[in-house]
Amino acid sequence: MSRRLVDVPALVARAREGDPRSVARLISLVEDDSPALREVMAGLAPHTGNALVVGITGAPGVGKSTSTSALVGALRRAGHRVGVLAIDPSSPFSGGALLGDRVRMGDHALDRDVYIRSMATRGHLGGLAWATPQAIRVLDAAGFDVVLVETVGVGQSEVDVAALADTTLVLLAPGMGDGIQAAKAGILEIGDVYVVNKADREGATSLRRDLRNALAMSERPEGAWKPPILLTSATTGEGVAEVVQAIERHRAWLEESGELVRRRTRRAREEVEAIALTALRERWTGRHERSELDAQAERVASGESDPYSAADALLASYAHEDG
Amino acid sequence: MSRRLVDVPALVARAREGDPRSVARLISLVEDDSPALREVMAGLAPHTGNALVVGITGAPGVGKSTSTSALVGALRRAGHRVGVLAIDPSSPFSGGALLGDRVRMGDHALDRDVYIRSMATRGHLGGLAWATPQAIRVLDAAGFDVVLVETVGVGQSEVDVAALADTTLVLLAPGMGDGIQAAKAGILEIGDVYVVNKADREGATSLRRDLRNALAMSERPEGAWKPPILLTSATTGEGVAEVVQAIERHRAWLEESGELVRRRTRRAREEVEAIALTALRERWTGRHERSELDAQAERVASGESDPYSAADALLASYAHEDG
Repeated sequence: MSRRLVDVPALVARAREGDPRSVARLISLVEDDSPALREVMAGLAPHTGNALVVGITGAPGVGKSTSTSALVGALRRAGHRVGVLAIDPSSPFSGGALLGDRVRMGDHALDRDVYIRSMATRGHLGGLAWATPQAIRVLDAAGFDVVLVETVGVGQSEVDVAALADTTLVLLAPGMGDGIQAAKAGILEIGDVYVVNKADREGATSLRRDLRNALAMSERPEGAWKPPILLTSATTGEGVAEVVQAIERHRAWLEESGELVRRRTRRAREEVEAIALTALRERWTGRHERSELDAQAERVASGESDPYSAADALLASYAHEDG
Repeated sequence: MSRRLVDVPALVARAREGDPRSVARLISLVEDDSPALREVMAGLAPHTGNALVVGITGAPGVGKSTSTSALVGALRRAGHRVGVLAIDPSSPFSGGALLGDRVRMGDHALDRDVYIRSMATRGHLGGLAWATPQAIRVLDAAGFDVVLVETVGVGQSEVDVAALADTTLVLLAPGMGDGIQAAKAGILEIGDVYVVNKADREGATSLRRDLRNALAMSERPEGAWKPPILLTSATTGEGVAEVVQAIERHRAWLEESGELVRRRTRRAREEVEAIALTALRERWTGRHERSELDAQAERVASGESDPYSAADALLASYAHEDG
C-alpha cells in the first residue's frame, strides 16, 4: 500500500483561510496520531497563541450542551470566531457527524465562523491529555479566537478540562447539588466563571448564595481573580451575554496579571515532558528487537546488576546513541 | 551537620552472616531513599536471586496475619529461612516495632532464621512499587530463601503484590465473599496457590467448589501451572504444611518452565524503566534553576516551537550533556 502524502503547508494555509474541511482534516491527523503529526504541529505553531481556550464543565443535567450552543451565539454576536471541541470520554466515536452535533450545529451550520467537532477519548492513554491540546492548536491557528472545550463532567475529566483551559467555566443548576456537594467535587478550585443555569427554577438564587459563601471561604491572594457567579437560562438565552462579558473580563485580567503566560507555559511544560517521556519509553521498549531495556532487565534479574546501575546504563546508552 | 557515613560493604557482610540489626539498617536505608541507596543496591546485587518471593493477599478478615505466622512456622519446619515484609498501605509507620509485629514476632522472636518487618507505603509515590522490591533484595541477599510479602488487601495493592512476587498466594475464607465476588476482585488472574482458611467453618467446601468452577472457566495454555485450592485452619495449623508443599511445587514448576526468569526479568524491566524515567524527570525539572524543560515550555507557549519539536530538543539536550 502506498501511503497518501499529506501536503501539510497547503492544508494549514487553507484552514487559515477558513476552509472547514481543512480544519477537519487537520484535527483527524492529530486524532489518528498520524505520521504527519509532527509536521502539522510545526506548521501550526507560528500561528498559535491568539485563541482564548474556555473550558466548560459541569455535572450531567445542568444544561451543558444548551449552554454551549447559547454561548456560541452570544460570542458570535460579540464578534468572535468560535471553535468548539465536545469531548466525550465515554464514547469511541469521533468526528463531526454525531447526532448531538448535528442538532446543535443546526443553529450555526451556515456560519463559517463557527466550527464544532466531537472528540472521543475513550481508550486514549491519558484521556484528554493527548489529542485535545493539539486539536486546540489547530483551531487556534485556523483563526478561531475563542475555543470552547466542553466535556461530559465525569470524575477526573472536570479537572482535566481546567488543566488545559485559559478560562474555566463551571456550570451548575438548582437541584443538581448544593454548595457543599460542589466543594466535594473540587469545582471550587477550578472555576474562573461560575454559571447557575436554569435560573428560572426554584433554588437558583439559594444555590448562588451557597456557592458564594463556599467561594468566600477560600483564601485568595491580593490581586487575584474573583470568580463571578452569573445566572442564566440557556434555553431562553437570558444572561448569556453577561457570561461572554465575564469571559472577556477574565481574558483581560489574565493578560494584565501575566497569568495567561504562566498558565500556558505550565501547560506546555507538562505536554512537552509527557511527549518526551513517551518517546523515550517507546525507544526503550524497542518493539521489534531486544532492546537495551530488555538487556538491562536481564542483568538485574540474574544479579549481575542492580536496578539503579541498570537505569544509569540505560540512560547512558541513550546519550551515546544521540550525542 | 556532618553526615554519618555508612560502611555499606560491612553492613552487607554482617547481614549475610545473619545479623538482624544489619538487615534492619539496610531496609531503613532503602526506605529512606538514602544517598547510600545506590551503593547498597550495587553491593547486594551479586547475592540476590536465591529467594522465592511469595506474595500473600486476601481481603481483611480472612485471617491473613494468622496465616502468615502459621506459614512462617511451617516453612521453618521444612528447613527454610524466612523473611517477612508486612506492607501496610494505610499506615505512615514503618519499622519492626509495631504492635502487630510484636505479637506475631512472639512465636519467632528467638529464631535468627526469621526476620519480620513492617513497611508503610502511605504517601509513597507508586505505593508498593518503590521501596518494597529493594527491601526484598535486602532479605534475599541476607540469605532468607523465602520472602513472604503480605499486604492488607485493599484495592490495587492485591495486584501490586502479585506483580512483585514469584508465587502469589490468595487467601479466602467462608462468609467473606463467594466465587463470583472473587472473580470481580481480579483474584482469579493473580493466584498461583489458593488457600481457603477457616476450613472448619460452614461454607468452606462450597467456597472451594465455587472457586474451582470459576478457575476452570479461564483458559490456560498447555503446560501452564494449575493453581491448587487448599483448605487450612491457620489457628490450629491444619493444612499449613500442605501450603508449604504447594509453594515448593510451584517453585519447581517456575524453574523448569523458565517462568521464574521471565517473571523476574519482567519485574526488573519495569523497575529499571521507572527508575530511569524518574531520574530524567528530576533532571528536567531542575529544582533550583530554570531548566531546559522550562525553556522549551516557554518556546511552545509563545508559538516559537511546537510540543514535538520541543520534546526532541529536550531529549537532544540531555544526550549532549551526557554524550
